[in-house]
Amino acid sequence: MSAADLKRPDPCGLVIWFTGLSGAGKTTLSTAVQKSLRERGYRAPVLDGDVLRAGLCSDLGFSAKDRHENVRRAGAVAGLMAEAGLICVVALISPFRSDRAAARALVPAGRFVEVFVNAPLSVCEQRDVKGLYRKARANQIPEFTGISSPYEEPESPEITVRSDLLSIEESVALILKVVEERLGR
Amino acid sequence: MSAADLKRPDPCGLVIWFTGLSGAGKTTLSTAVQKSLRERGYRAPVLDGDVLRAGLCSDLGFSAKDRHENVRRAGAVAGLMAEAGLICVVALISPFRSDRAAARALVPAGRFVEVFVNAPLSVCEQRDVKGLYRKARANQIPEFTGISSPYEEPESPEITVRSDLLSIEESVALILKVVEERLGR
Repeated sequence: MSAADLKRPDPCGLVIWFTGLSGAGKTTLSTAVQKSLRERGYRAPVLDGDVLRAGLCSDLGFSAKDRHENVRRAGAVAGLMAEAGLICVVALISPFRSDRAAARALVPAGRFVEVFVNAPLSVCEQRDVKGLYRKARANQIPEFTGISSPYEEPESPEITVRSDLLSIEESVALILKVVEERLGR
Repeated sequence: MSAADLKRPDPCGLVIWFTGLSGAGKTTLSTAVQKSLRERGYRAPVLDGDVLRAGLCSDLGFSAKDRHENVRRAGAVAGLMAEAGLICVVALISPFRSDRAAARALVPAGRFVEVFVNAPLSVCEQRDVKGLYRKARANQIPEFTGISSPYEEPESPEITVRSDLLSIEESVALILKVVEERLGR
């Protein structure tokens, strides 16, 4: 950043929005992207479900209404962070197109990079890192995305990553390429 | 910022929290502090009532419960922004000590600078920039801070600014002095 940049209003940052099924690899990828961005000198906070539900969204449960609200607030905070010049990395299942479109609408055109972390349901279910699919199949979790609640795939995400076919390094490289283009470097 | 800094996790920023009656000068001061910080090369987003209620808190009204929630969310976002290395400037009446204490608890010790923007009620009411005191006196606004709802003065704010006695420049200088000490510069 040049001295001249510092005197101007904060340059607009970016939102990188990871969406996909539970177990698709959103958190793994978002952390890897954060690391790469930091190595390049960018500040890149990650907002994921755990971070949000521990603080800003601690009043929300898992009803359909509360899930929409969780995504809405993530979008609002991501917008504020981008406006402040950060690269805000969001990692949320965010299964509904309308919720993701609302988040996109909060930042200037070109400043929202939607990354569809795409792995087949069968793969996610087999990984079942958190044991959630097993519980969902046993009807212990109502409205579980992919099982008893829909996941609306992005129709035109900036990037689709087949996380079952690409390595993390390959995926990060794809994402960084688009991000750096958007940042004009 | 040195190249070495950039490779490390984002250095923790600060929260500068302006509290005081409506009309005390919180927004004016917060904007002036933001400008000074930007001139010094810091990124300093301002979260005030208008910004929050236009987005993150657009679902909230003005009931006591919703006002607490508004302050809670501001604190949560300020904490995330400080964690991401920003100097987050919050300007909210935030009349209750417990709400402000909760916001303070979200950032590391020394990273929360509470600024009590102190002007006598009579002065604020005389200014009445938004015409709110007139409405409150006419019972058109229920639970208006200072009139029909309490304002709990900070007991040990880092800074108290008598906005009716000091110029904006004098107030900003006081605040910047503390902020720069806290940032170790």
